[in-house]
Amino acid sequence: MTEKHPFDDAIRLETIDASTMRGRTHPEWGNMVGPFGGITAAAMLHAIESHPDRIGEPLALTVNYAAPIADGDFDISLRTTRTNRTNQHWFVELSQGGDVKTTATAVFAVRRESWADTESRPPSAPPPEQVTASGPDGIVVWTLLYDMRFVEGPIPAEDDQPSPSSTTTLWVRDRAQRPVDYPALAALSDIFYPRVFLRRGGVVPSGTISLTTYFHADQHQLNGVGNDFVLCTAHANRFIRGYFDQSAQVWTRDGGLLATTHQVVYFKG
Amino acid sequence: MTEKHPFDDAIRLETIDASTMRGRTHPEWGNMVGPFGGITAAAMLHAIESHPDRIGEPLALTVNYAAPIADGDFDISLRTTRTNRTNQHWFVELSQGGDVKTTATAVFAVRRESWADTESRPPSAPPPEQVTASGPDGIVVWTLLYDMRFVEGPIPAEDDQPSPSSTTTLWVRDRAQRPVDYPALAALSDIFYPRVFLRRGGVVPSGTISLTTYFHADQHQLNGVGNDFVLCTAHANRFIRGYFDQSAQVWTRDGGLLATTHQVVYFKG
Repeated sequence: MTEKHPFDDAIRLETIDASTMRGRTHPEWGNMVGPFGGITAAAMLHAIESHPDRIGEPLALTVNYAAPIADGDFDISLRTTRTNRTNQHWFVELSQGGDVKTTATAVFAVRRESWADTESRPPSAPPPEQVTASGPDGIVVWTLLYDMRFVEGPIPAEDDQPSPSSTTTLWVRDRAQRPVDYPALAALSDIFYPRVFLRRGGVVPSGTISLTTYFHADQHQLNGVGNDFVLCTAHANRFIRGYFDQSAQVWTRDGGLLATTHQVVYFKG
Repeated sequence: MTEKHPFDDAIRLETIDASTMRGRTHPEWGNMVGPFGGITAAAMLHAIESHPDRIGEPLALTVNYAAPIADGDFDISLRTTRTNRTNQHWFVELSQGGDVKTTATAVFAVRRESWADTESRPPSAPPPEQVTASGPDGIVVWTLLYDMRFVEGPIPAEDDQPSPSSTTTLWVRDRAQRPVDYPALAALSDIFYPRVFLRRGGVVPSGTISLTTYFHADQHQLNGVGNDFVLCTAHANRFIRGYFDQSAQVWTRDGGLLATTHQVVYFKG
């Protein structure tokens, strides 16, 4: 970490006791309602990372967005549900005034050598330097904190028609070039505007309900990414009766799969 | 439900108090170590379904396999973390002798009418009647309770070579033709033998650590499935440092996407 940075500000936590940390919302991370879901995921993961009992690195994180987080302080309570020799399970709750707003489970794991292969392939994309940076989307302020360069499926303009495909692919970099670590990767998992916008050709009230991320990158691979752009791609599988699912991947410039991530989203209309 | 059936036996729970239900393992559901992960997921989902406070139908379920479940009784403790007007969040722990073995979070939701589309396409497969039923896999007993008909990627035989693809597609039906409901769908989410077997060409010590399922089917669609075969397909994205992820889908015979499901799996070697 170098300078004071909006991302580090937003995930900064104060230890209250052995199982409670306190943070606060930051207006620059505001979403349509409450803060950007990615920054909430990052703060909850960071709480575990910072806990003295933690072993290993993040392997899996599921965040359930139960209610909007109001502006102001929040408490993150966390406990291990099980510690094994090479992995550890956590349950985390974020609350305000005793009211639960977000819950999460996480698995941390000690990585070791093994046979390895990446079977998925990254989407084809020109290098980020050849892609135009998108302007502010005019809907939510937190997007100003990222340099986003859409390769496919940019956010629909006002007179756009519905698209037959829900796929979006974009290069993303923290605008202040903060390096990619696990909390940053948790936030990048939620970088995509709702897939239903593309399919309906405009803004539709919607919000993530549950987000799961599998972290494939070890610390060594993250060190190699530094503050470079990453290539993020997402698509939906089914939209039905007010909900849809999204599957996404986060790739390095040289074809390393950092994370796979999935979510289920509420929508209206 | 008609007759006494191994699946219903395995998810049968006795109410101990407002937040505790008791079940037990059944030898016919045995896996390599402890019970089949799918039946544990089904029992935990069934605990919520059976709870008097529950609203709506399952939308998302994440099950974390923290430690092997020993033969015998287990307690499932469950509580709502948040109840909203149209959805409800749950936290569930399965323990034995006070020792946590499995945790889960779930979102239940009231479904309503909306725009709908299935963007994914089912894998191509001949009808189940034209596919040979596989014999017992000789590794785990629970597979005897299903009629499995592999279209692609059957479990490797002893002299098989590593496959370049981790994809498995199979028709599955409960052998006693119990109809598909939400607990059955939760179990079907974990129906696949580990993808690493295909890629390494043989049995490799491995086990699911975290399983997430998004339920797209409403009760009406499930009623239409009845006890018919469903088409299940799975693939892995990345194998690295002892872990890999799997993404899978469960389809009806007529191209209805019942569920999308993801997991992260430990492997050795």
